Amino acid sequence: MARADFPPSGLVAYAPASIGNVAAGFDLLGAALAPLDGSLLGDLVHVERAAEASFQVTGPFAHALAGETRPNLALRARDLFVEAVRAGGEEVGPFAITLEKRLPVASGLGSSASSIVATLVALQALCGDPLGGSDLLGLAGRAEGLTSGSMHLDNVAPSLLGGLQLMVPGREGQPATRRLPWPSDLVVVVVHPAFRLSTAKSRGVLPPSLGWAETVEFAGNLAGLVEALHSQDRALLSRCLRDPLVEAHRAPLVPGFRAAQAAAADLGALGCSLSGSGPSVFAVAEDEGQAGAIAEAIGQAFLAAGLESRGWVCALDPEGARILPPGSPHP
Amino acid sequence: MARADFPPSGLVAYAPASIGNVAAGFDLLGAALAPLDGSLLGDLVHVERAAEASFQVTGPFAHALAGETRPNLALRARDLFVEAVRAGGEEVGPFAITLEKRLPVASGLGSSASSIVATLVALQALCGDPLGGSDLLGLAGRAEGLTSGSMHLDNVAPSLLGGLQLMVPGREGQPATRRLPWPSDLVVVVVHPAFRLSTAKSRGVLPPSLGWAETVEFAGNLAGLVEALHSQDRALLSRCLRDPLVEAHRAPLVPGFRAAQAAAADLGALGCSLSGSGPSVFAVAEDEGQAGAIAEAIGQAFLAAGLESRGWVCALDPEGARILPPGSPHP
Repeated sequence: MARADFPPSGLVAYAPASIGNVAAGFDLLGAALAPLDGSLLGDLVHVERAAEASFQVTGPFAHALAGETRPNLALRARDLFVEAVRAGGEEVGPFAITLEKRLPVASGLGSSASSIVATLVALQALCGDPLGGSDLLGLAGRAEGLTSGSMHLDNVAPSLLGGLQLMVPGREGQPATRRLPWPSDLVVVVVHPAFRLSTAKSRGVLPPSLGWAETVEFAGNLAGLVEALHSQDRALLSRCLRDPLVEAHRAPLVPGFRAAQAAAADLGALGCSLSGSGPSVFAVAEDEGQAGAIAEAIGQAFLAAGLESRGWVCALDPEGARILPPGSPHP
Repeated sequence: MARADFPPSGLVAYAPASIGNVAAGFDLLGAALAPLDGSLLGDLVHVERAAEASFQVTGPFAHALAGETRPNLALRARDLFVEAVRAGGEEVGPFAITLEKRLPVASGLGSSASSIVATLVALQALCGDPLGGSDLLGLAGRAEGLTSGSMHLDNVAPSLLGGLQLMVPGREGQPATRRLPWPSDLVVVVVHPAFRLSTAKSRGVLPPSLGWAETVEFAGNLAGLVEALHSQDRALLSRCLRDPLVEAHRAPLVPGFRAAQAAAADLGALGCSLSGSGPSVFAVAEDEGQAGAIAEAIGQAFLAAGLESRGWVCALDPEGARILPPGSPHP
């Protein structure tokens, strides 16, 4: 993809797309994605110091933000960053910021988290790392929360830190996450149908309260997943890689989802559920061949429901957000 | 304790007391107890083949069962065992069974689980192991569920299997548990106030439903505990060794509990909560000296609330239920 509209100096940060929830961990688990073909699946943010603040959006999904009436998330992230640095007694800015919007919005791929995290990481590097790592995570969570009403880390944490991230209780109410030991041989398929589903709508279908049995099942399933990953118990991993809590409520919002899930199960997927609040679907396969077949079958299921789609066969991105080397190609 | 009333032949099984919930894992976690002084904290069941079925209860808490109108749990366990063996095409029995009731009832120490598990383990050994290990766990869960209305494994699993047990999703709805890696240097204090609190009453104070934030906090806290144990992260362990779900509802039922908890925290306990549904309280200490001080302080808190109490300083019992060697003393 050409980036001729980027200014020639400054820094470029990349933040990967992510799967929120990862079936078992509603609001508590997230996984960063790295396509096996080496391409980048995530937004890029270019920043440089400037005489006055500016912001532009380029890239294949720039048009999707054109009708947005709220301030762009990258700008909110910038403002939170400047404010946090100022709280430490320093002044930074103004900045010229260009967001290369490469991820589809309202897709369930952590598009907003990617924009936020790439912005923060770019500004942090440009300004000489004025903030700590947990500060950045907190800022990213707050910026993400400005969309959904409360702090959610399940996309920003993996996009920032890479891997499979579990949200855990932090010191004095601070956000904290831990990287779980995801088996490196597993392959993750994500398929995005051409269909927008807002997080607000996905949250709107959830019932107001939960029963005790549901709550206990959800917690036991998530704790079982953590146990399975640490003990390398693949049978238990597969039993726990499911969503007992929200999937049933959201499935009707995504045409073709149940057929896609059934097809993935038939092909031996270890698990298959909505990515975040959907409409994207993810599945976990044991090798690349199986992953390709599952991606194809999920695409066919969406097509049968009248939706075009695009799929990626991925590992987990071990690194998370990063500054790209100057002049590097961004396939 | 004298056991002159035990017949001279047959087998004796021991099943340890246990802490249900272990703060973080309502209905999902349980820990088996082994007093550091080498004494047995749990019920004993003696079984032998007999011309006709008989059952008697002895021991220091036999009187507590005297007014019980329902069949004793040991008898229900025996009946489930005989039925399960019969389903496999074998006939066993009749048995002469003596339950030495050493645990206080309605105490939060897993007293009913101990009676059930000791009965099953004794019969299983006497009959030459006709059932599989997961069958025994399922039977124990069913026997325990006859009290509370649904299957609960959080006491029977540790009493049967030892250690800290997490309930996880099993194959085709079967019960399954995993032993979590509890640090062997930690010391567990349990203190039992002279006060009965039925599980039914403890469950009765819980609200009918839960909010999403509560559910997510509970699951994240439990998953964080599993992560902390595997990664040997003691700070995270301490942050997760708490009960965000039920403790607040049950605390008012136990006079002195909040004072006991505050005293344990002042003394540096890693965590302190109700054991199971109470009224017993447990705390986790980092060494035996600290544990002794905490046990003393919890006892003082109960005394200030008008309750005598008895405390034990324990490790986790690594083995769980077992057949005692013939003629062994049972301190």
